[in-house]
Amino acid sequence: MNIRIDELKKIERVSQPFKLASRDFRPKGTVVSFNGACMGSSVGGRELVVIAGPCAVESREQMREVSQAVMKAGVKALRGGAFKPRTSPYSFQGLGREGLEILAEMRAEFGLAVVTEVISPQDVDLVAEYADVLQIGARNMPNYALLHAVGKAQRPVLLKRGMMSTLKELLMAAEYILSHGNDRIILCERGIRTFEKYTRNTVDISAVPLLKRLSHLPVIVDPSHGTGKRELVGPVSRAAVAAGSDGLLIEVHPQPEEALSDGPQSLKPDRFAVMMRGLRPVAEAVGRTL
Amino acid sequence: MNIRIDELKKIERVSQPFKLASRDFRPKGTVVSFNGACMGSSVGGRELVVIAGPCAVESREQMREVSQAVMKAGVKALRGGAFKPRTSPYSFQGLGREGLEILAEMRAEFGLAVVTEVISPQDVDLVAEYADVLQIGARNMPNYALLHAVGKAQRPVLLKRGMMSTLKELLMAAEYILSHGNDRIILCERGIRTFEKYTRNTVDISAVPLLKRLSHLPVIVDPSHGTGKRELVGPVSRAAVAAGSDGLLIEVHPQPEEALSDGPQSLKPDRFAVMMRGLRPVAEAVGRTL
Amino acid sequence: MNIRIDELKKIERVSQPFKLASRDFRPKGTVVSFNGACMGSSVGGRELVVIAGPCAVESREQMREVSQAVMKAGVKALRGGAFKPRTSPYSFQGLGREGLEILAEMRAEFGLAVVTEVISPQDVDLVAEYADVLQIGARNMPNYALLHAVGKAQRPVLLKRGMMSTLKELLMAAEYILSHGNDRIILCERGIRTFEKYTRNTVDISAVPLLKRLSHLPVIVDPSHGTGKRELVGPVSRAAVAAGSDGLLIEVHPQPEEALSDGPQSLKPDRFAVMMRGLRPVAEAVGRTL
Amino acid sequence: MNIRIDELKKIERVSQPFKLASRDFRPKGTVVSFNGACMGSSVGGRELVVIAGPCAVESREQMREVSQAVMKAGVKALRGGAFKPRTSPYSFQGLGREGLEILAEMRAEFGLAVVTEVISPQDVDLVAEYADVLQIGARNMPNYALLHAVGKAQRPVLLKRGMMSTLKELLMAAEYILSHGNDRIILCERGIRTFEKYTRNTVDISAVPLLKRLSHLPVIVDPSHGTGKRELVGPVSRAAVAAGSDGLLIEVHPQPEEALSDGPQSLKPDRFAVMMRGLRPVAEAVGRTL
Repeated sequence: MNIRIDELKKIERVSQPFKLASRDFRPKGTVVSFNGACMGSSVGGRELVVIAGPCAVESREQMREVSQAVMKAGVKALRGGAFKPRTSPYSFQGLGREGLEILAEMRAEFGLAVVTEVISPQDVDLVAEYADVLQIGARNMPNYALLHAVGKAQRPVLLKRGMMSTLKELLMAAEYILSHGNDRIILCERGIRTFEKYTRNTVDISAVPLLKRLSHLPVIVDPSHGTGKRELVGPVSRAAVAAGSDGLLIEVHPQPEEALSDGPQSLKPDRFAVMMRGLRPVAEAVGRTL
Repeated sequence: MNIRIDELKKIERVSQPFKLASRDFRPKGTVVSFNGACMGSSVGGRELVVIAGPCAVESREQMREVSQAVMKAGVKALRGGAFKPRTSPYSFQGLGREGLEILAEMRAEFGLAVVTEVISPQDVDLVAEYADVLQIGARNMPNYALLHAVGKAQRPVLLKRGMMSTLKELLMAAEYILSHGNDRIILCERGIRTFEKYTRNTVDISAVPLLKRLSHLPVIVDPSHGTGKRELVGPVSRAAVAAGSDGLLIEVHPQPEEALSDGPQSLKPDRFAVMMRGLRPVAEAVGRTL
Repeated sequence: MNIRIDELKKIERVSQPFKLASRDFRPKGTVVSFNGACMGSSVGGRELVVIAGPCAVESREQMREVSQAVMKAGVKALRGGAFKPRTSPYSFQGLGREGLEILAEMRAEFGLAVVTEVISPQDVDLVAEYADVLQIGARNMPNYALLHAVGKAQRPVLLKRGMMSTLKELLMAAEYILSHGNDRIILCERGIRTFEKYTRNTVDISAVPLLKRLSHLPVIVDPSHGTGKRELVGPVSRAAVAAGSDGLLIEVHPQPEEALSDGPQSLKPDRFAVMMRGLRPVAEAVGRTL
Repeated sequence: MNIRIDELKKIERVSQPFKLASRDFRPKGTVVSFNGACMGSSVGGRELVVIAGPCAVESREQMREVSQAVMKAGVKALRGGAFKPRTSPYSFQGLGREGLEILAEMRAEFGLAVVTEVISPQDVDLVAEYADVLQIGARNMPNYALLHAVGKAQRPVLLKRGMMSTLKELLMAAEYILSHGNDRIILCERGIRTFEKYTRNTVDISAVPLLKRLSHLPVIVDPSHGTGKRELVGPVSRAAVAAGSDGLLIEVHPQPEEALSDGPQSLKPDRFAVMMRGLRPVAEAVGRTL
């Protein structure tokens, strides 16, 4: 339980439908900390967090190559899916437990924290054994059984906004997790569905300052899913940081053209490193470090 | 297993991403049958199916009043949620097992088939004990763990389109269920999210003829959630039938103003009966019976 | 001036932002009449109106073939654009005055009323010389200078809902025309933009009963633009009539595959005749004639 | 005519539907210059342009107060509507010619360039007499008669994206203007319509880098209309600059609470000055000046 008993008295002062998620409940803001193998990390403070890695864990070699590259570029948390929610039952569904084991090896070898998705309440314990942060994907944001399960798990949660969910609904989803006393939640804007066809989704950049006002929870942006195009990841990442985002979630793959999923939106390691360098002056311009 | 071995050879002829759900796979169309206590029913044939009842099971009295009323109006299947996916963790979440028991009593007493929602893979066996048709709600359409579970359950499934899902994604969700050999799936158009504010959702009426062309599965429409306004339920129901819908899913509540959820879109029993009478000539005009 | 002086006193009772367009202003409903060469027609009464013809006037031969066909199928009003608002400046922009002359010839020869679009305030007088009904296209619904101009022209107006406009905005656009005393306005639902990709637009079927409740003005539906697919025109037309539409606007072209615009959504004359026959029983089922 | 004859040969190399608007047509990018009373300004170069002022010109006093304030904050171009496209015919429609005269006085007094909207082809000559830049509002982006008229006027044009127009459609609208040889076009992202309700529109931040890649035309962002909330204007402005925007269009009003339109999204002069200061380090972080 991370929500303190004395805090709970404040709940009556909150006029929003989201009570524990409201900024009024905890005006100073929440810093979510999580651990990697040999160091800790946190989101919501002065330092920005970048979580990088491939869409899916495909092999030990792929993950080692990515881990090395993103670590060199200054990243402290590794993403990679072992359980993949795919539109088609015939698409690659992830390596499952084997993928989790590979992720754990990367943590041991490179000291990176592991962020990975869980898609079923039944898998929460298994995933929590390996992961430092449990990710709830956009499709599962309104999966209340899963939200209850990760709430009970008392582990940090990366909660992605549904592709057609309002910000109010996102905060209500966080409220499900918070209602179990688990306040280690990182909100993630990852683009919403609109009529525009050039991009896979439309990144709602105003969600960043709005969520920061409405809630005390940290907010990050996923420009990879948000745009679906690697050439837009750099500019949208800079925009996110300038708008006040506490971090970024970015897809990096050594051979994007051969990726089992999300190739077109993944950056190669060298391009990712360039992007990271371009991000630092923007972070400093808004009083943050990277 | 309902998909026949000799049918599976046809799969290569299907050019769509949805294989088993495609109309090419089974050109003549699928009729989904399900049982109530003392009679059978089916969707996809000449006769239309109306599934009616309250949003949530609230009490034995409420359910008895509704059951009696809808049965008199010619309805053979009763809807009512025992597990409710709600935006807020503080809203009424359904009566759970007690709600299922009440539904089973209604089946025994009135001979109505029971259609009720399941929101977690872990509850599928429990709900399947009581229900004739397992409902997957709009929020859970892209919940693949749940789709696998109801696929394995080998029970008829009412699969609602996600409020943010394309028709292709709906058919791919059906494909998840079909991939377990379970072909007793009823697709349901229930309105999508748009910028229009007068209605809760926008019923995509062209989804009906499109789904009937793309797939062999029966299609019904939910004008209650689709519009969010009871005064629109009648006209949109007539439109659905005229467009070729195989049935309707309609919210009926004895005291809508006191309903624990979805009051503004629920019809009172007497108004529902009037609506049913107005529906018959439209059904006949397009060669169907009710 | 068609709005009567004694009616204007009622305006204070109207609580909606649209005053003259509100159903409260004229509870009994408005029947809009317009003339063809040798007969009158009206929209909003018991009889449905079907306005049919090609997207664009291309030639005298094309228009004669279409006119003959639609007249035989029971149609009294001909559509066809002489001024075409096209996304690209390099696409066919319409025959202009020559197109208007061809339309006038069709009226003389076949007795059909002429419905045609005007896209600039400067052209209103010219188009009004030839047309029985001035059409405001979806792109121009929020073109207030044009709305003022057709309001002043005192001719019947077919006002299409913008593809991005709420129903409130549509009624406010009608209010612009009504504010000049011109109450001969036919509202037209023609599909809105959503994320769905199978159809060109999403027909908002609940717009029909909603507009009929909110306003006294007649409402028709354009299933051709609304769906963008000719195979959906029949079912969506039946749905529109069942939902209470006062008529339909349908694209018919003798050789859709060679049409200069909107070929994929145009019906061939024979298929249009079949569709008209299928529509009659639906009209009768809801107490209308065709 | 600003497009050079020798450039026109390149048109065949352009594979996009927008030819003259394509980046391939003029790879180096276009800098649009326009004049105020005593100095010139340009958009698309290293220096960012901020265009600021009230939604509507309401009075000489209001405009003088705003002009003084924005000039002090480093702004070189003044916005303010004399012709206002309003949803309701009963809302304030702008001061018309009197508003234009006030704008011209401000130019004379403060040396600010004047940017103001034109809403009818018939008014283009009148507005061009007073304005340095002709603005086409979001509602009129698909008003092709108006696009032709401003194309012929050979004056700089600020072309706003329609609230439900794709980027391709925006570039095709620019193509209408370019087809008259007028290449002094500034594109403006001003938010699109989505299902989100906290904000008036959703700023599509990825539109900035996408438009810069697809086209040679300069791109600015309007965070005032884009968000509809003054507290979001600062963060979204910073995001726009970080994403590569060539400038900003911002609503400033001395008494927002008494504004005749768009009060809730207008900044007071002092808050605007603070915002401008916060913008400079972000501009420098991405290699621009302000």
